[in-house]
Amino acid sequence: MSKGITTRAADFAAWYNDVIMRAEMADYSPVRGCMVIRPWGYGIWELMQKALDDMFKATGHQNAYFPLFIPQSFLAKEAEHVEGFAKEVALVTHTRLKAVNGTLVVDPDSKLEEPLVIRPTSETMIYAMLSKWVQSYRDLPVLLNQWANVVRWEMRTRLFLRTTEFLWQEGHTAHATEAEAVAETLQQLATYRQFMEEWMAMPVLTGVKTDGEKFAGAVWTYACEALMQDNKALQAGTSHFLGQNFAKAFETQFQTAEGGRDYVWSTSWGASTRLVGGLIMTHADDLGLVCPPRLAPQQVVIVPIWKTDAERDQTRDVAARVATDLRAAGLRAHMDGREGMKPGAKYYEWEGKGVPVRLEIGPRDIASGQVMVARRTGGKAAAALDGIAAHCRAVLDEMQAALLAAARARREGNSQRGFANKEAFIEFIEGVGGFAYAGFCGSGACEAQIKEQTKATIRVLPDAEFRSPEAPAGCVWCGEPSTAEAVWARAY
Amino acid sequence: MSKGITTRAADFAAWYNDVIMRAEMADYSPVRGCMVIRPWGYGIWELMQKALDDMFKATGHQNAYFPLFIPQSFLAKEAEHVEGFAKEVALVTHTRLKAVNGTLVVDPDSKLEEPLVIRPTSETMIYAMLSKWVQSYRDLPVLLNQWANVVRWEMRTRLFLRTTEFLWQEGHTAHATEAEAVAETLQQLATYRQFMEEWMAMPVLTGVKTDGEKFAGAVWTYACEALMQDNKALQAGTSHFLGQNFAKAFETQFQTAEGGRDYVWSTSWGASTRLVGGLIMTHADDLGLVCPPRLAPQQVVIVPIWKTDAERDQTRDVAARVATDLRAAGLRAHMDGREGMKPGAKYYEWEGKGVPVRLEIGPRDIASGQVMVARRTGGKAAAALDGIAAHCRAVLDEMQAALLAAARARREGNSQRGFANKEAFIEFIEGVGGFAYAGFCGSGACEAQIKEQTKATIRVLPDAEFRSPEAPAGCVWCGEPSTAEAVWARAY
Repeated sequence: MSKGITTRAADFAAWYNDVIMRAEMADYSPVRGCMVIRPWGYGIWELMQKALDDMFKATGHQNAYFPLFIPQSFLAKEAEHVEGFAKEVALVTHTRLKAVNGTLVVDPDSKLEEPLVIRPTSETMIYAMLSKWVQSYRDLPVLLNQWANVVRWEMRTRLFLRTTEFLWQEGHTAHATEAEAVAETLQQLATYRQFMEEWMAMPVLTGVKTDGEKFAGAVWTYACEALMQDNKALQAGTSHFLGQNFAKAFETQFQTAEGGRDYVWSTSWGASTRLVGGLIMTHADDLGLVCPPRLAPQQVVIVPIWKTDAERDQTRDVAARVATDLRAAGLRAHMDGREGMKPGAKYYEWEGKGVPVRLEIGPRDIASGQVMVARRTGGKAAAALDGIAAHCRAVLDEMQAALLAAARARREGNSQRGFANKEAFIEFIEGVGGFAYAGFCGSGACEAQIKEQTKATIRVLPDAEFRSPEAPAGCVWCGEPSTAEAVWARAY
Repeated sequence: MSKGITTRAADFAAWYNDVIMRAEMADYSPVRGCMVIRPWGYGIWELMQKALDDMFKATGHQNAYFPLFIPQSFLAKEAEHVEGFAKEVALVTHTRLKAVNGTLVVDPDSKLEEPLVIRPTSETMIYAMLSKWVQSYRDLPVLLNQWANVVRWEMRTRLFLRTTEFLWQEGHTAHATEAEAVAETLQQLATYRQFMEEWMAMPVLTGVKTDGEKFAGAVWTYACEALMQDNKALQAGTSHFLGQNFAKAFETQFQTAEGGRDYVWSTSWGASTRLVGGLIMTHADDLGLVCPPRLAPQQVVIVPIWKTDAERDQTRDVAARVATDLRAAGLRAHMDGREGMKPGAKYYEWEGKGVPVRLEIGPRDIASGQVMVARRTGGKAAAALDGIAAHCRAVLDEMQAALLAAARARREGNSQRGFANKEAFIEFIEGVGGFAYAGFCGSGACEAQIKEQTKATIRVLPDAEFRSPEAPAGCVWCGEPSTAEAVWARAY
């Protein structure tokens, strides 16, 4: 039944692309590294946006919109920031095309005095504006978010996971005190985690990045890290405590309650369409996508089954009524009454798109007042037509919880805590892979050597609740005393 | 009370900017021609998006996302299209910065083989993808929409009305027959009109553009035209019937039901953040913004009034309860309990932001079980605290209807039908201005002469319901027989 889809065991990367193509979630565009997000993929993204946006607003954030273009000179104001982004920026240098001998060329007379960078992120523009808006402690905190496209000129791209242009949200906040900014950083990290677990059914580790892995310009970068089915990690969302770095670069000062002057303390945090890739690699199987119910563009698809014209009219009528009932109960339901297409072909299509529940309604089902309820994750049973909406709701809730539990069990089964020696650590990383919890001396040299030899990186120095009951004594690499437990993995 | 705001009578353009600044809707950015949309302005745009998006989805459209970048060669494929856009495109030519003697410069080694155009609109990219997706009549219709930013390098910009980068939605549909595509074009025009009238309380004329004013690449362009308070027209939304122009340029062919091959018939339609400018220039007054209730980020603001600490606690408690009641009733309500700020200063702030209803709650009001209800458009009266949510809802509905009626009356009062002669026509255009309904011979020469001499353009050849009872006999300019009534005005 899975014709056309490579299996995960055969080639995980090929499987990933096949799932996307079969579900019609995205496609390659004619521009290198840029994707087209098709309605099914965009539908998932819209549901993600709505859930996150509601959570951001519930904690007092407001949306705004800042320009796509950033003057080249802005990027240079924060030293680490420019270092991190200079090699991957799209640059606008001209503003006109003209025809020369019938061929369109860039008009040299339209050259800009200062090239414009297409935003890879918006800190610099936002601090330039905050310097204008923030005068006094009364203007703080500023709690902003923007939904936008950004561009980072990537050499190796993969649908959703790493594309030259991607969609994301970037939150930017400014505070009067360091403590408030730190609290905001952690609150947003917790919001991401809650979203990933409750909506995506994707369990994540949280913790802080090492200096080598943090955001260019941040004091601390906190991250949510998930483990994909191929045992590679995915950084799914980051929350940065920026200290006063950008405030100093852009002179964002305010008058304190005590009458002095200080630079604002700030944060930024972002999550992107990469989450859609994380959802796929967490739940999809060899038959195609598996959508967690809360993020499924259609949660229930209803397929009427008929042979005669009279049966067609009857089953479509009942199926349409069921769809109306489900929608009235707040479910996303679709009746697939297409003619000239066999039920099996419809099942195959919706299976590939990962719709959680399929209802099959034939004349005999109607006669006995029931309907067949098939779950995308396996299992099929009859249920009474009467009360079908409540039944579907219960099934969807159960599936949502089961997906999270299964993903959590898989992650824990692919995590190893403590290693007898360096060789055992290397064997784990280079073998099945997964999250390796190990002692770390804190030295950038060890970190770099491990990365070079095994391609594994420190995903996070995990937050307390994820740490091993007994703190590791020595660094898994050099044997010196461990200053923190680290979680290592190869990553996307 | 209107300190800081220029009056409309004194200088309409300055007034417009003052309203935006006072309401904190937007600000100038450091990039020429690009604006920052601040939370209050963005909040209005979000409500607009939600309303339009719901209407698009109710008629079967799905959202998708196409790349920001368009290969330069794509633009050239449709002759009129490139002619219309070549002189105002932002061009990405390089992808890296490098430091030379400590200064950041464009790295010449990163030059792209083919420059990329930042989309001024996405027809070309979308038809390139449709050529891949559409094989058979069974794949049609394709009904897509995207919410995105676009860039047109404008020389003279104005906040919301004309900016180098702006936000919009662009719908793109492909159909098997010409009739279906024409019906879609008109349906979307009707959707825009409904939105503008029912949500923005901004009445519009609909009709078709002349060849000189149509979209570059369209067969027909239909538009919604509104009349601003300075009697200049604003094109607020357009719906294009593209025929097979782009399908032919991009070889978007399909197998027909009869087994033949044909090019798809297509449409595109768009509305942008310019609508926010239209809302301002339709309703705002010399005190600041006036938000139509259905698009107000806050519909009701509740201001507690106190002198003593005990009164503060009491009035804030009651005000907070009222806010909760209003929100439970589905209204957008905000309790402004800020300390260290006089009620008058709060009134002034919310007045500038155009919040439709203000509730004032003092200790004496509470004692008598009432609250003062002040309308942004004038008038203040007591109402019982009991049932205040229903009362506010009724007041808001009444205000929404009154704003539309007032705008319609203003437009009709500033429209003139029929002119004794050319001189009377010129006098109207160059005098008070407004919508001039006049006979038109259909000649591009007359159209161009009128534009050159009076700066007025044909906004639309109006749809039947807007035409004068008696069709004009002769062209207002040359006197030759009129082929269609035209509506002329100076425009934004």
